[in-house]
Amino acid sequence: MALIVHKYGGTSLADLDRINAVADRVKAAFDAGDEIAVVVSAMAGTTDQLVSWVRAAAPLHDAREYDTVAAAGEQITAGLLALALQHRGVTARSWLGWQIPIHTDGGHGRARIEGIETDELLRRIGRREVPVVAGFQGLGPLGRITTLGRGGTDTSAVALAAALGADRCDIFTDVEGVFTADPRVVAAARKLTKITYEEMLELASLGAKVLQIRAVEMAMKHQVPLQVASSFADTPGTFVVDEDDIVEQERVSGIAYSRDEAKITVMGVADRPGVAASIFGPLADGNVNVDMIVQNISADGTTDLTFTVTEADLDRSIAILEETRSAVAYDRLVADQGVVKVSVIGVGMRSHAGVAQTMFAALAEKGINIQVISTSEIKISVLVSEDYTELAVRSLHAAYGLDDHEP
Amino acid sequence: MALIVHKYGGTSLADLDRINAVADRVKAAFDAGDEIAVVVSAMAGTTDQLVSWVRAAAPLHDAREYDTVAAAGEQITAGLLALALQHRGVTARSWLGWQIPIHTDGGHGRARIEGIETDELLRRIGRREVPVVAGFQGLGPLGRITTLGRGGTDTSAVALAAALGADRCDIFTDVEGVFTADPRVVAAARKLTKITYEEMLELASLGAKVLQIRAVEMAMKHQVPLQVASSFADTPGTFVVDEDDIVEQERVSGIAYSRDEAKITVMGVADRPGVAASIFGPLADGNVNVDMIVQNISADGTTDLTFTVTEADLDRSIAILEETRSAVAYDRLVADQGVVKVSVIGVGMRSHAGVAQTMFAALAEKGINIQVISTSEIKISVLVSEDYTELAVRSLHAAYGLDDHEP
Repeated sequence: MALIVHKYGGTSLADLDRINAVADRVKAAFDAGDEIAVVVSAMAGTTDQLVSWVRAAAPLHDAREYDTVAAAGEQITAGLLALALQHRGVTARSWLGWQIPIHTDGGHGRARIEGIETDELLRRIGRREVPVVAGFQGLGPLGRITTLGRGGTDTSAVALAAALGADRCDIFTDVEGVFTADPRVVAAARKLTKITYEEMLELASLGAKVLQIRAVEMAMKHQVPLQVASSFADTPGTFVVDEDDIVEQERVSGIAYSRDEAKITVMGVADRPGVAASIFGPLADGNVNVDMIVQNISADGTTDLTFTVTEADLDRSIAILEETRSAVAYDRLVADQGVVKVSVIGVGMRSHAGVAQTMFAALAEKGINIQVISTSEIKISVLVSEDYTELAVRSLHAAYGLDDHEP
Repeated sequence: MALIVHKYGGTSLADLDRINAVADRVKAAFDAGDEIAVVVSAMAGTTDQLVSWVRAAAPLHDAREYDTVAAAGEQITAGLLALALQHRGVTARSWLGWQIPIHTDGGHGRARIEGIETDELLRRIGRREVPVVAGFQGLGPLGRITTLGRGGTDTSAVALAAALGADRCDIFTDVEGVFTADPRVVAAARKLTKITYEEMLELASLGAKVLQIRAVEMAMKHQVPLQVASSFADTPGTFVVDEDDIVEQERVSGIAYSRDEAKITVMGVADRPGVAASIFGPLADGNVNVDMIVQNISADGTTDLTFTVTEADLDRSIAILEETRSAVAYDRLVADQGVVKVSVIGVGMRSHAGVAQTMFAALAEKGINIQVISTSEIKISVLVSEDYTELAVRSLHAAYGLDDHEP
């Protein structure tokens, strides 16, 4: 008998039929003998509706009231799923963040969980009761409802699993697991059986929406095994586990890409100490997240700095750089949105040589020019023209032997 | 400077435009110098939607989960109105039932308020802050959300006004006040300037949806002056006050009617002690609310009993009476849904003679046959064929001098 936390996202709870299907799934796991706690998102679309009302009521809104309004969505689904379980003969009750409580800091709209009181939940789970916990929400230090930020229900689920000492946290969503590449781009993409926390973190950072970054960090920190699986299928998903739990590690686990990139080149800046800080300092102050950075070889005392930001931050970045022009002399700015970041990810590259070389060779063979390169311990990313997105991803998928050759 | 509790119903908060209009109204009262606390319903339609989901999830639903789901509607409007007030420069915050707390008993779905902690609210009101309180909800003895039953936001508002020691509770709704008769039936109906709690109670019992019965009872008990007014107009509404506050009392304040009546006649029952109890006992056990009752003069040891129930209870009443036929011998049952109850109401009838006679004469003059009569201290009701509804109401309105003769 294991204690499993199930998390269901908004698509899985979008209407009464789907809530009933989720109740069937929870009951099946419960009847099989496991102890189950469930964490739910709001119905798909509900949070967007609530947030749009908040914005309409007050463009510069009080985050405490935002949280009060936004948390209503999960309150509704928690009650409805508890009812659907009761209707199937499963003893269940809903738990709101303030009732457990799930203590958070006072960072309204992006609160962090500080502790979860589990005594009563564990007592009830031990009596074969299923708690249905409203995700995304907690109780702040001054007795007000807090929310954890978009996608926060993943974090709620992992934090609850950690606090309960659960054996696993199953994240049920609308995809069947984590794939070696986006199946819409690479027909030969395979669902991974296992992936490490570190790889999952890199994937989440690259925009894979399958899991929230904070949830993966928390799972890694507390060593909570995760499973990402479809709530619409009965097949096993992808298990996100510690590196030690993967016996034979592939060099590369997957290929990711992100179109949400914009490249900025600051041309003709003085090549002297402190110039990078004087450019990136104001950007950081402006909450711009700078990703890849390269600096060209200096020529005649000036150099070019190239870096990437998200497309949403591009205009603001340009504005900030133009404001700081008096402090940082440069010739001109060149911006380019026609780029894509393609990454190969795998903890195996720590122990396998030649991973980068395989990448460069595969791209060169297709005539794809690499504009920027950045590497981390388990990831190599290149920036290329977005015209080559699909070609680059497919070529790399094949080059690393990831193509599915089963029928 | 007065402390006024404003209550806004779902029609007044149906969308963002209306919520903004309510915020304008609250701000105007606040800027005029009054201290204001606001109690809000859910957006029109929200509670119906939530309740329909609850019923779909579990036909025999756990009232505790019903309350958790249903209370979300007022949570949303409380947050949105607080935001809209803040946007207008008014310091405001939302308060949920569990945050104040509004303590209730454990009667989920129909809980009764037992106490409201007002220290913090009063402290903030004294600092010129406007509390926006989610109506309809409270905190039960075991830490779960309770709701007060449909229309419970009126009760929340009056209870809050009583607990705060407010000078008045203004119920803003979609009608301009309490009228001498339904304006859709009687073109000459007038809006009453004042009405007593007792009269308002009788009107609410007769199905006037303008105020919840429990709210009126509570206002009467705690002597909270009420005003019923339109949230869409700037004219004064109807003040609901103590009898002593009305200097010159009309004999009759208004004419009401209810089509939701069904007449049952039990024919040929033995005319002996205990027979009424043996008929009405099982009906009471079956939760049937019996209203008007008459017993004919006995002939040859048997008699006929006639009484009225709501139309919704008719089929169940017949079924109960047929089940008890072995215990209560009778010849046959006759049911009639084609009836209407017409009532004249006025605390003035206590001190004025001839009120009933005026009624009977007015109906007789129009050839309207009275089937059943019942009276209370401040009300006379008659059951007539529903074909005569409008004629009866208009005739009585004129007979008691209620017609509006102003241009």
